[in-house]
Amino acid sequence: MASTGPLSGITVIDLSRILAGPYCTLLMAELGARVIKVEPPGKGDDARHYGPFKEGRSTYFVSINRGKQSIALDLKAPADKRVFEALLAKGDVLVENFRPGTMEKLGYGWETLHARYPRLIYAAASGFGHSGPYSRHPAYDMVVQGLGGIMSITGHPGSPPTRVGTSIGDIGAGLYTAIAVNAALLHRERTGEATKVDIAMFDCQLALLENAIMRYTTTGDIPGPMGARHPSITPFEAFPTADGHMIIAAGNDGLYLKLCAALGRPDLAQDPRFATNDLRNRNGDALRAALDPLLRGKPTAEWIAILEGAGIPCGPINNVAQALAHPQVKARNMLVETNDPKIGTVRIAGNPMKLSAFADPPTRPPAPDLDGDRAQILRELGLQP
Amino acid sequence: MASTGPLSGITVIDLSRILAGPYCTLLMAELGARVIKVEPPGKGDDARHYGPFKEGRSTYFVSINRGKQSIALDLKAPADKRVFEALLAKGDVLVENFRPGTMEKLGYGWETLHARYPRLIYAAASGFGHSGPYSRHPAYDMVVQGLGGIMSITGHPGSPPTRVGTSIGDIGAGLYTAIAVNAALLHRERTGEATKVDIAMFDCQLALLENAIMRYTTTGDIPGPMGARHPSITPFEAFPTADGHMIIAAGNDGLYLKLCAALGRPDLAQDPRFATNDLRNRNGDALRAALDPLLRGKPTAEWIAILEGAGIPCGPINNVAQALAHPQVKARNMLVETNDPKIGTVRIAGNPMKLSAFADPPTRPPAPDLDGDRAQILRELGLQP
Repeated sequence: MASTGPLSGITVIDLSRILAGPYCTLLMAELGARVIKVEPPGKGDDARHYGPFKEGRSTYFVSINRGKQSIALDLKAPADKRVFEALLAKGDVLVENFRPGTMEKLGYGWETLHARYPRLIYAAASGFGHSGPYSRHPAYDMVVQGLGGIMSITGHPGSPPTRVGTSIGDIGAGLYTAIAVNAALLHRERTGEATKVDIAMFDCQLALLENAIMRYTTTGDIPGPMGARHPSITPFEAFPTADGHMIIAAGNDGLYLKLCAALGRPDLAQDPRFATNDLRNRNGDALRAALDPLLRGKPTAEWIAILEGAGIPCGPINNVAQALAHPQVKARNMLVETNDPKIGTVRIAGNPMKLSAFADPPTRPPAPDLDGDRAQILRELGLQP
Repeated sequence: MASTGPLSGITVIDLSRILAGPYCTLLMAELGARVIKVEPPGKGDDARHYGPFKEGRSTYFVSINRGKQSIALDLKAPADKRVFEALLAKGDVLVENFRPGTMEKLGYGWETLHARYPRLIYAAASGFGHSGPYSRHPAYDMVVQGLGGIMSITGHPGSPPTRVGTSIGDIGAGLYTAIAVNAALLHRERTGEATKVDIAMFDCQLALLENAIMRYTTTGDIPGPMGARHPSITPFEAFPTADGHMIIAAGNDGLYLKLCAALGRPDLAQDPRFATNDLRNRNGDALRAALDPLLRGKPTAEWIAILEGAGIPCGPINNVAQALAHPQVKARNMLVETNDPKIGTVRIAGNPMKLSAFADPPTRPPAPDLDGDRAQILRELGLQP
């Protein structure tokens, strides 16, 4: 692997499937780690069978597994277990997202691993974590989006249940896992001690909900969906324009005064109902009633030119194509290419972690074929292919 | 600070305000780092003025800044600059989320910092990053939620614009910043080299959208909002029941077969339209038409008992109060207390990063008063209070 980064030299043994674990190890690969996927023989990672497909290859899988390597091992077969154990002896981090108990059944619970491989960090991302009465319950993204409360504050009052458009249950868990694993790597580097990292998707949903939880415990009111408004800041929301909608985010009193001036409504700056953010938040409907007819008077692009000129944070509501056409995407290399030997170029989201000491190349190595790196890996381990 | 963790001994000098930067440094504090907030004299972090309030104190601020320290410094005043520079000489990481250019105006751009403090890691979280034509544009959470595309895939077809219920623009940036900073700390530990970490909230939105971007670049179809359905997996969505809604997430063929059996509809398991996930995804409306009337026949709790018994990932759609009442919350310590000297107990979201080598106490130190740690900090720096 040619990639370099702050995790160069770190080897991740990756048993994880689909999204939460693989998203964590994707970020580690982007930071320079070598990630070796250990997949079940035959079908491999479930994500290889999720669409969309390009000439039979899952681009869902490519997007999350670019730059990783693959070896297929049956963790119940003695010969394959020997290979796996040789990998563990060489690895720095083991990542898995099985249901709790699975690793113990395979003979690779934390106590066993830590005794045999005292420098190996072990990260488990599961639905409910490795402790507590629900530990062994199965979970997927949608289940924890529903259980964790984020769906109850997403959407419009009275609308049917609304999912966050992205798989925040899985990706959230992947992000917290990566933070904890990197901290555990630092701790091991400084002290020699390896730790187990136990991440629950459900816990991560609660962590992401920090604001709603704090509002509930402070006020006793159960937060509900607010459409496109912010719960604590006003005006900080979507407004209708002559040809669609736009976002205006006047996050403090100074920006609110600038907004009133830019809209030609200095009277709203003087109105005692809107004198502070707290007052504007409590009188949000009245402020909205004053702003809506005004903003409906011009198309989005005209308003953005006016408000941007006045230094007010604002913008359109882009679809994915429009978002990718934003000039920052090219300037910041946020759409990268992976050159797949079978299906050619696949364009995927880039790495948002830009580090001055490392290059951020415009291409990424491809995702591996199932078992595609077996020969090289066995050779390195000194085992017979 | 009594907290210990994998970042114990690391000192973070934190110029950041409101949410993206403070969320990163909150996670670092939870992992054991000492975080010293450097706030503008007089008003401090804007978040101190965001509601809700308890006896005049912002619990918004408490939630994000528990366990940090505070010193108020005017970075344009020579005497305070000397204090700030003594902090930089002592610190491991500087975190800020100003608009790009601000640090240079203050005399603390990366080149200057790196030359004077060669071991100092510098993390900047801004709206559009430190490069590209939009670099200096202002942004807030709502602006990047609109620009980055996540609002275009959240909500129901035809519904008004829908925000993700949590501030995913800020929190997303905070998460990626924490991953990158921890990796940069490891790199510095191993090589002695400090790096600049340049995070754009807009870039992070694209990174979170990896699935939607891959679908768009693969198929050319612009993804739209899908309510509570998953774009690539079926059935994996909210269904109406006799008394509300529930989530069913049959993420692979085996779970689909179990679901059909548990629902008493083996015919649906045999139906060729639903034989694989890809077919179910393409024929999702037909599958839904078969399942909806059936699921409306019993209340949510009954269905959950039946489906959980059959090992099928499922669950209710909880509000925040219901989510916090889940038995895992207590078992996993996901609602912690901070004992504020002025307003007493504030209950806030816990830390989802559970590490075997470190305790996860049920209480957290309080958030600091503005400038509340000045005397101690000056004493440690050997400066006159």
